[in-house]
Amino acid sequence: MRVGIVGATGAVGRELLRVLHERRFPVRELRLFASPRSAGRHLPFGERTVAVQPLDPDALAGLDLVLTSAGSTLARRLAPALRGRVGLVVDNSSAFRMDEDVPLVVPEVNPDALAAHTGLVANPNCTTIIALLAVAPLHREAGLERLVCASYQAASGAGARALEELERQQRALAAGEQPPPPEVLPRPLAHNVIPHIDRFEPGGYTREELKIERESRRILGCPALRVSSTCVRVPVPRAHAVALQLEFERPLLPERARALLEQAPGLEVIDDPELGRYPTPLDVSGRDHVAVGRIRADRSHPRGLALWVVGDQLRKGAALNAVQIAERAFGIGERATPQANAPEGTG
Amino acid sequence: MRVGIVGATGAVGRELLRVLHERRFPVRELRLFASPRSAGRHLPFGERTVAVQPLDPDALAGLDLVLTSAGSTLARRLAPALRGRVGLVVDNSSAFRMDEDVPLVVPEVNPDALAAHTGLVANPNCTTIIALLAVAPLHREAGLERLVCASYQAASGAGARALEELERQQRALAAGEQPPPPEVLPRPLAHNVIPHIDRFEPGGYTREELKIERESRRILGCPALRVSSTCVRVPVPRAHAVALQLEFERPLLPERARALLEQAPGLEVIDDPELGRYPTPLDVSGRDHVAVGRIRADRSHPRGLALWVVGDQLRKGAALNAVQIAERAFGIGERATPQANAPEGTG
Repeated sequence: MRVGIVGATGAVGRELLRVLHERRFPVRELRLFASPRSAGRHLPFGERTVAVQPLDPDALAGLDLVLTSAGSTLARRLAPALRGRVGLVVDNSSAFRMDEDVPLVVPEVNPDALAAHTGLVANPNCTTIIALLAVAPLHREAGLERLVCASYQAASGAGARALEELERQQRALAAGEQPPPPEVLPRPLAHNVIPHIDRFEPGGYTREELKIERESRRILGCPALRVSSTCVRVPVPRAHAVALQLEFERPLLPERARALLEQAPGLEVIDDPELGRYPTPLDVSGRDHVAVGRIRADRSHPRGLALWVVGDQLRKGAALNAVQIAERAFGIGERATPQANAPEGTG
Repeated sequence: MRVGIVGATGAVGRELLRVLHERRFPVRELRLFASPRSAGRHLPFGERTVAVQPLDPDALAGLDLVLTSAGSTLARRLAPALRGRVGLVVDNSSAFRMDEDVPLVVPEVNPDALAAHTGLVANPNCTTIIALLAVAPLHREAGLERLVCASYQAASGAGARALEELERQQRALAAGEQPPPPEVLPRPLAHNVIPHIDRFEPGGYTREELKIERESRRILGCPALRVSSTCVRVPVPRAHAVALQLEFERPLLPERARALLEQAPGLEVIDDPELGRYPTPLDVSGRDHVAVGRIRADRSHPRGLALWVVGDQLRKGAALNAVQIAERAFGIGERATPQANAPEGTG
């Protein structure tokens, strides 16, 4: 297949290259695009490297698959120009996630939504994907009524430049120096946590927090689902965690929930507190599987369950989910993939 | 007054020295105690330094005030030996917090509980103190029914050695080296978050999480309060944050909640999202006031409120609260204290 990646030099773009290679996606031709500033660079794809071109919709025409990870403003301009000229666009921005004629898909959760696609599919928000991988099997069993979420989101979720900013701050602090002021994130992140991801909306929630509500409702097919989130950036390079409190229509015992989650695709249960077994961001960084632990009956609600879900937001939260959408759309069977602990970055 | 500090070389002990000095607590004589390993060291108290002695109950006898911060096993041995031989013991461990004849006090919340003391008062859990400073005024207004809490707890909350361990890991990572394996905390904390504070109990909650339930019920006088928490260690040196979702008997608008919190003692409202104003751990480190922001109507509950509370757990979460208890017990009026941004550590 002829494949293009828009935003190839970003954190998600580089992960897309790794995921396509690791999963042996049938790439016959690969074109990489980024801003003019990054054009001319070469990025590794397996054994070879591929030159990055400045973005040009005409250079994308005729491709079978275009994976875009370039912000919603650009996506809104680009996608109409591509529709009908490329086989499928999987867009990682928030531009089209609420468009009724654009499927919003987590392949393990709502694969059937893909059938209706007309050339454009939206990849959900990273925190939403990670949470829903654990929430969906429980919802099917007991009927989810309310979801309360507090997140612990990694720096690279705000892009490669945010991660570099955190690393600069951490190096300065380790050397006993004053860290440089933040330019990408709204506050210093080293030695800190920041309850502010994406911009604030009327009512006091952030867009990131509202995305979890809107996208969960759409993906789970629960328009009345009640959701409240607090999304917080933490000084972790990679992998998001969420503390979830779920309330169901019908009672759901932790033992039953654990059994359901153990059978759920894309999910690994790491849950034996007495042996100190629970997932942390370091455990899942670079891994495909989302991990869930600390599954317990909610002491504060008779039909409640509390759990802790951790996933690499560049993998399942972004690049892997996008490639899985493409595989499913093109009928490419899931291939056996080693659980590679990918290195932290290549570029 | 003749004052003793047990556990003087620990993170809380050193903060007790700073708080006593800053608040001009009327210290006529000061005796510092620690494990034999630390005896012989000298700690600063204002302009002078004071030698640390090995712990000896007889050397404590006759003191007016003993502030203990030395773990619950030691506290359980020590307190009976001191009762009747010293004027007042304020114990920072969890040993006596559930004892009916030992008041558990946050002076801004339940000062009247102090009246019944018989020589021993318990200082509450740090996360509980910080959360309740914001929760109590709202509870008085609207009747709290349920509290859901996710915490972002600093390394120094696990003691000075945990903070040193985090700093060692961070220095190694900044130098591109493999960090040494953890010895104090259950997992590596640098570049990570750990959903495990204190030990796990049957049912899957940790003791830290259950402390928030038990102590909140007792301090607020709400034995039926429903509480569920997820307590998480984050790579922050100092200051805890909590994302709270509160459910009340009666509706409580965010505007009314904000007005109540602005009048509440010990609390600072930092809440103007459009101007990027909300508190973070760096903002409150070394400060006496607990800060609250992100006050908003809970989208998922008709009588719910979501908020974000941040406080220096060594100050108001431990040392300051203990000294305030002593001030009140001895009728020492609150003194004007500058909002000192205390240096990170002295020892």
